Amino acid sequence: MSDEVYLNGELVPRAEARISPFDRGFLYGDGLFETVRVVNGIPFRLGRHLERMNRSCAALGWGRQLDSERLRAATEELIERNAVAVGYLRITASRGPLAGKLTDLEAASPTVLIDAHAMDLPPLDSPPDYVLAGSPHRAEPASLLVRHKTLSYQAYLLALAEGRAKGADEVYFLNSCGHLTEGATVNLFFVRSGTVCTPDEGCGLLPGVTREAVMELCEAQGIPLSTGEFTPEELMQAEEAFCTNSLRGVVRVSRLLGPPDTEFGRGPVTVALQSAYAALVDAECQRE
Amino acid sequence: MSDEVYLNGELVPRAEARISPFDRGFLYGDGLFETVRVVNGIPFRLGRHLERMNRSCAALGWGRQLDSERLRAATEELIERNAVAVGYLRITASRGPLAGKLTDLEAASPTVLIDAHAMDLPPLDSPPDYVLAGSPHRAEPASLLVRHKTLSYQAYLLALAEGRAKGADEVYFLNSCGHLTEGATVNLFFVRSGTVCTPDEGCGLLPGVTREAVMELCEAQGIPLSTGEFTPEELMQAEEAFCTNSLRGVVRVSRLLGPPDTEFGRGPVTVALQSAYAALVDAECQRE
Repeated sequence: MSDEVYLNGELVPRAEARISPFDRGFLYGDGLFETVRVVNGIPFRLGRHLERMNRSCAALGWGRQLDSERLRAATEELIERNAVAVGYLRITASRGPLAGKLTDLEAASPTVLIDAHAMDLPPLDSPPDYVLAGSPHRAEPASLLVRHKTLSYQAYLLALAEGRAKGADEVYFLNSCGHLTEGATVNLFFVRSGTVCTPDEGCGLLPGVTREAVMELCEAQGIPLSTGEFTPEELMQAEEAFCTNSLRGVVRVSRLLGPPDTEFGRGPVTVALQSAYAALVDAECQRE
Repeated sequence: MSDEVYLNGELVPRAEARISPFDRGFLYGDGLFETVRVVNGIPFRLGRHLERMNRSCAALGWGRQLDSERLRAATEELIERNAVAVGYLRITASRGPLAGKLTDLEAASPTVLIDAHAMDLPPLDSPPDYVLAGSPHRAEPASLLVRHKTLSYQAYLLALAEGRAKGADEVYFLNSCGHLTEGATVNLFFVRSGTVCTPDEGCGLLPGVTREAVMELCEAQGIPLSTGEFTPEELMQAEEAFCTNSLRGVVRVSRLLGPPDTEFGRGPVTVALQSAYAALVDAECQRE
């Protein structure tokens, strides 16, 4: 089975892919990425991921859009070449080789890398539960990148590593106002009095494609939904909690690490949303 | 004249240098860098820059130190090869190729890039003045990376580009408490009642090598120095203001963009520190 990647217009063997270290992506974390679950050889809601990437290109001054149709075609070709049925897709686009001034933001020649490979992902209707730890690192809602999925990602990795060292699977951040924002690779949800609550974008978070799908499912199923500013105390008093991620879907939170620890039961809302999300992905990722 | 770079143990022509795009530096901005002014073919206080880099390696979980002696030797060889008398040195070290989990932080095989080339830099005793703009983007003192010079640098570039679009040369940030921190590529200083003031490290900033040298010079010259928490109003009421950067040294701030604008005179403290810094660099960068 071949293991190729797409790099700047060509499919090349993974081990042979090379870029210049004078790429702004390497020198300054100056780029964007998306990760997507592939199901039946189809990336779930690839269009939404590419739209988000292009919204970020506009917001971050690239002076151009990425060619979504070309990226989609390259992704399909790569998935076929690597025979990916269920797996991982990552699309990376940097602002390209360093040229001119640091502050010349126009991305005349972006570097584009697509990686698609088979991965043994947990089933969407019953992924393993997560334990969450509070991160001591505050997110800043007025910071420039907090709403974008950028290559300047080191802080999220480090916070996640700290959480895992404490025995958690993920972390949750507060912003400088003390409100919940998101996790390192997940969006946060909890259920209070039957209402699904999730921090508003204004709190400073990446609006996930899975988060959006879950909000759609709440509406379709008549589950009350509230977006806003929430404190960690409100999370701790919740009946249920879950987090969302493009690879893993809707993941129940079983526990928040304390002290004191907070345990959550396997509640009906999370179970219903896991089933509904699995069905949605299955329906949208049908080969003709 | 040759134009080579050092990459992972070898000198190679700049245009031929290549890394894998699956380097954590590219995928996640997961690495560190230092920029240094080269004078008489000697990088000013390279040792301090390498110490800072290794403090960051320790703080960020690399599980190893970079070999300072080897980096120093490689830098000297490269400077000689490229015949750099006055110029720019950048040492970049990423956590290396992606292997294992995202949260495996141990840097078993870092990617090291050294770039040294001649650059027409302004004289240290009279660099052109800077105009500063306040950045709307808040730094967060409890954030994980604010004290380290990491490859996750995109936010600084964007804030700088925004400042330049307003007609400024640099920007100044406030932290979420409203205190001054630093600029995108500079540390901040101002003079009030004859005392040199600069934000304390605890405000959330990169402690610059030039900042440290200026603090030493204040002590040597009997100029009162105060580090602490300062508001932008205190900066605006100052008699003089300047900023520091490894490439440009001590740069007088002539104006803060408003409205209303704040103008600063060419005061005696800034002038004295520019002369003293130029003399210090000259003295330390003498070839035997």
